[in-house]
Amino acid sequence: MRFTHETLPQRVRFAAGEAAAAVREEIDLLGARRAMVIASPRGTDAALAVAAAIEVAVLHDGVREHVPVEAAEAARAVASGHGVDVVVPVGGGSATGLAKAVALTTGLPIVAVPTTYAGSEATDIWGLTADGTKTTGTDRRVLPRSVVYDASLTLDLPAGLTTTSGLNALAHAVDALWAPRADPINAALAGEGVRALARALPAVLDAPRDVATREQAFYGTYLASVAFASSGSGLHHKICHVLGGRFDLPHAATHAVVLPHVVALNAPHAPAAEQRLAAALAGASAMDGLAELYRRLGAPRSLGELGLREDRVVEAAAAILPSVPPGNPAPVDAHVLERLLRAALRP
Amino acid sequence: MRFTHETLPQRVRFAAGEAAAAVREEIDLLGARRAMVIASPRGTDAALAVAAAIEVAVLHDGVREHVPVEAAEAARAVASGHGVDVVVPVGGGSATGLAKAVALTTGLPIVAVPTTYAGSEATDIWGLTADGTKTTGTDRRVLPRSVVYDASLTLDLPAGLTTTSGLNALAHAVDALWAPRADPINAALAGEGVRALARALPAVLDAPRDVATREQAFYGTYLASVAFASSGSGLHHKICHVLGGRFDLPHAATHAVVLPHVVALNAPHAPAAEQRLAAALAGASAMDGLAELYRRLGAPRSLGELGLREDRVVEAAAAILPSVPPGNPAPVDAHVLERLLRAALRP
Repeated sequence: MRFTHETLPQRVRFAAGEAAAAVREEIDLLGARRAMVIASPRGTDAALAVAAAIEVAVLHDGVREHVPVEAAEAARAVASGHGVDVVVPVGGGSATGLAKAVALTTGLPIVAVPTTYAGSEATDIWGLTADGTKTTGTDRRVLPRSVVYDASLTLDLPAGLTTTSGLNALAHAVDALWAPRADPINAALAGEGVRALARALPAVLDAPRDVATREQAFYGTYLASVAFASSGSGLHHKICHVLGGRFDLPHAATHAVVLPHVVALNAPHAPAAEQRLAAALAGASAMDGLAELYRRLGAPRSLGELGLREDRVVEAAAAILPSVPPGNPAPVDAHVLERLLRAALRP
Repeated sequence: MRFTHETLPQRVRFAAGEAAAAVREEIDLLGARRAMVIASPRGTDAALAVAAAIEVAVLHDGVREHVPVEAAEAARAVASGHGVDVVVPVGGGSATGLAKAVALTTGLPIVAVPTTYAGSEATDIWGLTADGTKTTGTDRRVLPRSVVYDASLTLDLPAGLTTTSGLNALAHAVDALWAPRADPINAALAGEGVRALARALPAVLDAPRDVATREQAFYGTYLASVAFASSGSGLHHKICHVLGGRFDLPHAATHAVVLPHVVALNAPHAPAAEQRLAAALAGASAMDGLAELYRRLGAPRSLGELGLREDRVVEAAAAILPSVPPGNPAPVDAHVLERLLRAALRP
């Protein structure tokens, strides 16, 4: 047990049905008065409802996936043009990501209101995409000061997105168990996150409009992301980063498909992580627990169906190899990655 | 699930055998140069060893239990007289507490090096005693910026102190399950803390000089204190606060004796906490698990043996009553408190 763990400061509120009041209180605590509300083009109504109790200096709906640099620059110009003093993203990872792009250069505080299980709201990780390449980094300024989880905003999240976004959250927790800065504190948070998600996600599919169950999914998402922010990216995220950036595969679904293959590779070399996962998934083993969860969720299982072609596997493996974390439990070379990708290609 | 959770920023290092190097690195990160090292009169050698790699502007050994105001004022005068820019307490809760008293008025950063399981290093709670009354409060300035856990410093902690200090740590985790700001995030941290302490403490008594086991006890202590800092004091701590302040009972041992009685009172009214405790203690119930742990530790069981007289029970209950947290799971009145104290009096 030899590690350094840095806990990041953040306020988190669970306030089902009360996002508007909670956002108001969090913004008052910051002493802010002029909010820039960020939403996806189809999410402006929901965002304005969340912002009903605050002064909206500007509503910005220029959210695009993977935060293209042009979108970031446009949002920064809007922020400075309207003299805003707080940014309030209402939406999934792309909305939070755009708010982070603004905070990165302006230092403006963020009060995040997530509506998916992307988890970006609990990390200090930012990402920007230019010329087809996504660059990520960490900066304390992009960590939202407050997060408001209002599960009533997620009741209409479709089953498919609930599953892929939820498994994306699960992947944060799993990767945190063997990422470069994995430590026992992250492991405790990650284990509880896996437990909550594994229980909540099938229950959410059974009763999509049950607020308490949706709230459990948020709870697991939050813990998974806190663990992941501290641990850094493990093998799983390195693989998905390349697949998303280079081959334009859809973000959350790619995470869902890749996860069991990384667990199958690493678990035999990481007995403590394997045991924690098995217990949290209530399975005889981590792989058994994961397989049963995927079965109940009807989760996507094939990179081929997401658009990866078999004749690109060697190229993909070569692109992933340089970013494989040195401390990954299982030894990894190009052949290991090719085998993993081929296994993940099949339906 | 309706709560606000505030995570406090702190760096934590587990660095067995390497406190001196770790303290040096943490102080460099702060940009500090002139350390005030705080130790108990019998702990100065250990403190100087921990401070071997830094510039010690002054070594102050005026640590006294419960942080009397005069001791705090003396320490503050020493700090300003020597132009120090960081405070490094090496010791138990009283050493950390004295450093906090300095930080409270000066804003000086603290790098804490604990040598017991008191847990003060992971909280923003300060305490000062004047005229026999202990006042406590919370202030962000007193939260140590960094904590260095070096388990090699605890190998000589006597069995009796290991037990009472360890059960004091356990009490932080248990009380966090039903304190005023109890929430699912605290509960996750507290559960893991209980699990680690319940395994580590008997193992430490079996092999007091085993560094890995001592480290597990520190790990549990840390998680318990983080949970407690966030949850605030529950019934257990309110009872012990009065018993310690008014009747001068020894701090850690009082916590050890009172804990099972608070669990017996609250557990039937707090099923989720009861289940979490039972699982973490690996008992058929929370009470069974706790009883088995106390048996293995040979823990103190009698307030009478600590010095409380039966004819003071009514007075004690009356003194505790005004501070009973309103949300305590079990209903509490003076008679309930008197029954609890009488049960805790007996050996």
